[in-house]
Amino acid sequence: MEDQKNSIEVCFSPLLFPLYDHSDSIVVVVDILRATSSIITAFHHGADRLIPVRTLEEAKSYKKNGYLIAAERDGRVLDFADFGNSPDNFTRERVGGKTIVYSTTNGTQAIQMAGKAHQVLVGGFLNISALEDYLTSRKKDVLILCAAWKNKFSLEDSVFAGALTDRLLENGHFDTICDSAHAARDLWLLARGDLVGYMDKAANRTRLKKLGLDQAIAYCHTRDVTDVIPVLQNEELVRLKKS
Amino acid sequence: MEDQKNSIEVCFSPLLFPLYDHSDSIVVVVDILRATSSIITAFHHGADRLIPVRTLEEAKSYKKNGYLIAAERDGRVLDFADFGNSPDNFTRERVGGKTIVYSTTNGTQAIQMAGKAHQVLVGGFLNISALEDYLTSRKKDVLILCAAWKNKFSLEDSVFAGALTDRLLENGHFDTICDSAHAARDLWLLARGDLVGYMDKAANRTRLKKLGLDQAIAYCHTRDVTDVIPVLQNEELVRLKKS
Repeated sequence: MEDQKNSIEVCFSPLLFPLYDHSDSIVVVVDILRATSSIITAFHHGADRLIPVRTLEEAKSYKKNGYLIAAERDGRVLDFADFGNSPDNFTRERVGGKTIVYSTTNGTQAIQMAGKAHQVLVGGFLNISALEDYLTSRKKDVLILCAAWKNKFSLEDSVFAGALTDRLLENGHFDTICDSAHAARDLWLLARGDLVGYMDKAANRTRLKKLGLDQAIAYCHTRDVTDVIPVLQNEELVRLKKS
Repeated sequence: MEDQKNSIEVCFSPLLFPLYDHSDSIVVVVDILRATSSIITAFHHGADRLIPVRTLEEAKSYKKNGYLIAAERDGRVLDFADFGNSPDNFTRERVGGKTIVYSTTNGTQAIQMAGKAHQVLVGGFLNISALEDYLTSRKKDVLILCAAWKNKFSLEDSVFAGALTDRLLENGHFDTICDSAHAARDLWLLARGDLVGYMDKAANRTRLKKLGLDQAIAYCHTRDVTDVIPVLQNEELVRLKKS
């Protein structure tokens, strides 16, 4: 039917993810500060594959086999890693044509958790218009999974979820009865006039400032830097082919 | 120190509650539609004690021992119960001087879950000013626990959490670095001009409409019907003595 709408839902924490029926949905995983922003940047700069791993032991064993490793915990680069989790690490010279093994506090674990969905995409402000176009074209239900901070609600992920929800509701192909989606959208409508200013109160921003990493914040909130969408295939992230 | 501020945090779902250190905090449990609004009303109308129970088996065994039972699941009164979960059930004639055993889908389970906190209070719009005054006088950290709907984020509980957060931050004795508290407060500031109208999009409101129970909605969002605060003592709720 022409006027059949798909549903959009928002999940504020990986701990709540099992409450949602996602087996036939497209799940968009978001960790604005900074895993999904960095992953999108890596593919935008030509990375070939990205292997999300949950534990540091897995990351170390890949390291022994010669892989490039991006790994952080609590915002800090780990000593055995080649990269941290800051998007400016992922330059074309360093990642072009390469496979990267990736482990972070929140983001990569959320990607793995969503693995049983119909399709798992990596989202952020950096590719929001590409996401909107693709999701609208697919005619599937959508669940936005916020990576959060150690499973606690995070403002920047939720506001992004609201921004994407707002676009999908406005374009007329989606509907929602999800309170989280309504709340996220209202937060986005409040924040959008001065997005980076609004994030001043976000705990993750304070954390990054303390670590001297807050130069990434404005970049991670920039819209439409790229039209690349990373997608999970056989437990690895690759560039989505849209045709 | 005179200027030492206490922290206020908001937890959007019982599933997230274990992430918060609440052992030395006052936990305010909220289930606006409708358990905590009904419990406050019961004490306002003279109920003596209220025993929250998690399972229907417990409620049935109390029933055999002659107790008054309030019990619902998914918004429906259970056949063996004396009351449902609607605040207008709890009239002075029916509850004055009585002990009530109470079991609901979300609210009473959240109250039991919070049992290990320094103190557990039952909150709602109906007693919000009394709560503000009491919490300000106690000089303890505060955690607002939203009962939610089957562990999913609920708009009305979260907006109430924002209303109480806003009052505590405004009065100058509290501070927060909790993203949920900031988000809840912003939702409240958006909703407060037309609170009941804002709740039109809440899934719980739609659920109650379908059950013909939506007459309770305006009442449950009314501020300061009473200054009674129910408090958990020895696994039972009683009226807080404020002196």
